[in-house]
Amino acid sequence: MDLAISFDDVLSAAARLRGVANRTPVMTSRTVNELTGYQVFFKCENFQRIGAFKFRGAYNALSRLSEAEKARGVVTHSSGNHAQGIALAAKLLGIRAVIVMPSDAPASKLAATRGYGAEVVLYDRQTQERAEVSDQIARDRGMTFVHPFDHPHVMAGQGTAALELLEDVPDLDVLVGPIGGGGLLSGCATAAKAIRPDITIYGVETETANDWWLSFRQNERVHIPPPDTIADGMRTQQPGRLTFPVIRRYVQEILLVSDAQVIEALKFLLFRLKILAEPTGAVAPAAVLQKKVGPPGAKVGVIISGGNMDAALLAQLLGEA
Amino acid sequence: MDLAISFDDVLSAAARLRGVANRTPVMTSRTVNELTGYQVFFKCENFQRIGAFKFRGAYNALSRLSEAEKARGVVTHSSGNHAQGIALAAKLLGIRAVIVMPSDAPASKLAATRGYGAEVVLYDRQTQERAEVSDQIARDRGMTFVHPFDHPHVMAGQGTAALELLEDVPDLDVLVGPIGGGGLLSGCATAAKAIRPDITIYGVETETANDWWLSFRQNERVHIPPPDTIADGMRTQQPGRLTFPVIRRYVQEILLVSDAQVIEALKFLLFRLKILAEPTGAVAPAAVLQKKVGPPGAKVGVIISGGNMDAALLAQLLGEA
Repeated sequence: MDLAISFDDVLSAAARLRGVANRTPVMTSRTVNELTGYQVFFKCENFQRIGAFKFRGAYNALSRLSEAEKARGVVTHSSGNHAQGIALAAKLLGIRAVIVMPSDAPASKLAATRGYGAEVVLYDRQTQERAEVSDQIARDRGMTFVHPFDHPHVMAGQGTAALELLEDVPDLDVLVGPIGGGGLLSGCATAAKAIRPDITIYGVETETANDWWLSFRQNERVHIPPPDTIADGMRTQQPGRLTFPVIRRYVQEILLVSDAQVIEALKFLLFRLKILAEPTGAVAPAAVLQKKVGPPGAKVGVIISGGNMDAALLAQLLGEA
Repeated sequence: MDLAISFDDVLSAAARLRGVANRTPVMTSRTVNELTGYQVFFKCENFQRIGAFKFRGAYNALSRLSEAEKARGVVTHSSGNHAQGIALAAKLLGIRAVIVMPSDAPASKLAATRGYGAEVVLYDRQTQERAEVSDQIARDRGMTFVHPFDHPHVMAGQGTAALELLEDVPDLDVLVGPIGGGGLLSGCATAAKAIRPDITIYGVETETANDWWLSFRQNERVHIPPPDTIADGMRTQQPGRLTFPVIRRYVQEILLVSDAQVIEALKFLLFRLKILAEPTGAVAPAAVLQKKVGPPGAKVGVIISGGNMDAALLAQLLGEA
């Protein structure tokens, strides 16, 4: 089966994102290297615009709309970073954006999305399906729906994170990233394998959100019930139709970490490296800190996917043992 | 009066620190620039080894000891970052170090200092003077006392932070740093004024810890009672004998911020820039976020001096309004 994206698509996305997305820093830590035995390179997408990698794919996708599509605007559903990614990209490109969000979403997320100028349409999670709400808006207003991950331009955009990382550290042995819907890892794996065919790539999810792990075992897209996990970016219930074949081809294995290991990694990043990762952003670092990847001495690139969290959640996590 | 250090001393320190201290990143933020109207460049010493700038001065000072002095070891008193700076520098240079710390210091700080291989000697804050305890040790064991700030090699070492910042951003209009004992700002001002004579330099302290502010008014080193402030690096009670003349000559003005403004800045850095500053590290950013420096559009360099904080304190700060 043909894959949804190629390395050329990632290169093309990089050209569009130049000067618009942040080229995020790669950080290293003597302490981490001593503790793990690897040479670890953190790609810090928590320093990306909107605080997460999602801006890359959103901007790439919106920038490729036709003038007619741009004039009619875009719609998506997300209670997380994709909402803000689309909202900011739309603002920069002068496109109207509607974000469908649950009526019980945190006030801070609603405010942040509205702060970028997007229109927020609320739906009731008990009585409505968000996909139906956004489809209806797309039909009524002629808007283009932009899927959070199962979209070639979104996938290619996210891949620019790995492109930058491999430019900075060309001889990486291992690449580790979190995997929710697969948008980030499909793009990053496409880029990394093209640049360095011998690289070993791991996706990491939390134990309860193991749809990818199960799908790798059964070699088909397994659907799981809504998982209970601290890492909200892991709450997708099934691998994407477009992302699954890409990841199946390029990714060596899906690793699982516990919520407790994620919280431990988050605290380690905060108090030792002095950087804030959101729980989903600490998922891949957790696997590295647990030494689940590669042989001793391996050069390991790990993606910190985002850093958006409110004070209440962080205070709660710090209060836990 | 001759000043204790010159620009040559800072350059010489930089040569000794090359490959040993981290060259810390300079971070920028569109959000900060929009909010303040300045172009702000954060020099991130929270990413320095031991999590604060103090390693620079400590290593420079210890590396300059004679072989006989190195063989006898060093002693200092500190309950904060200077302790860890001396401990790590001593370990790297193969020198024995004794750190005099209060018996009620947080267990995490005692453990961190011992973790670098230093010997910790505890004293009772109610009944003993720490200077007397360390003097006694210096006499008994023939060790060299290394003052936390009033020491030419310490001052020159700290100045390398500004040297790096001006190398990265040569056309800075304003430099802003926190001022406790004055070690950091005396070195940084010496470097910045030598490289860019027209630069305007501000020192920032918290309102209750206003010994420098008073000393600028009275043009002499004013001694204040122990101040109550969240920023523990501000708790020195009098400008240094060596640091005062340097800072009096090069620094335009001392700015005051409230503890509440420091906490607000700390939270802003954490949740918007995704980096952890300790309260003292957020003092200079607080003055910038309060727009207390320079005209609109000014290129403002600001030093985040450190990021060491335990989880309990951060949880407490997050719980406050």
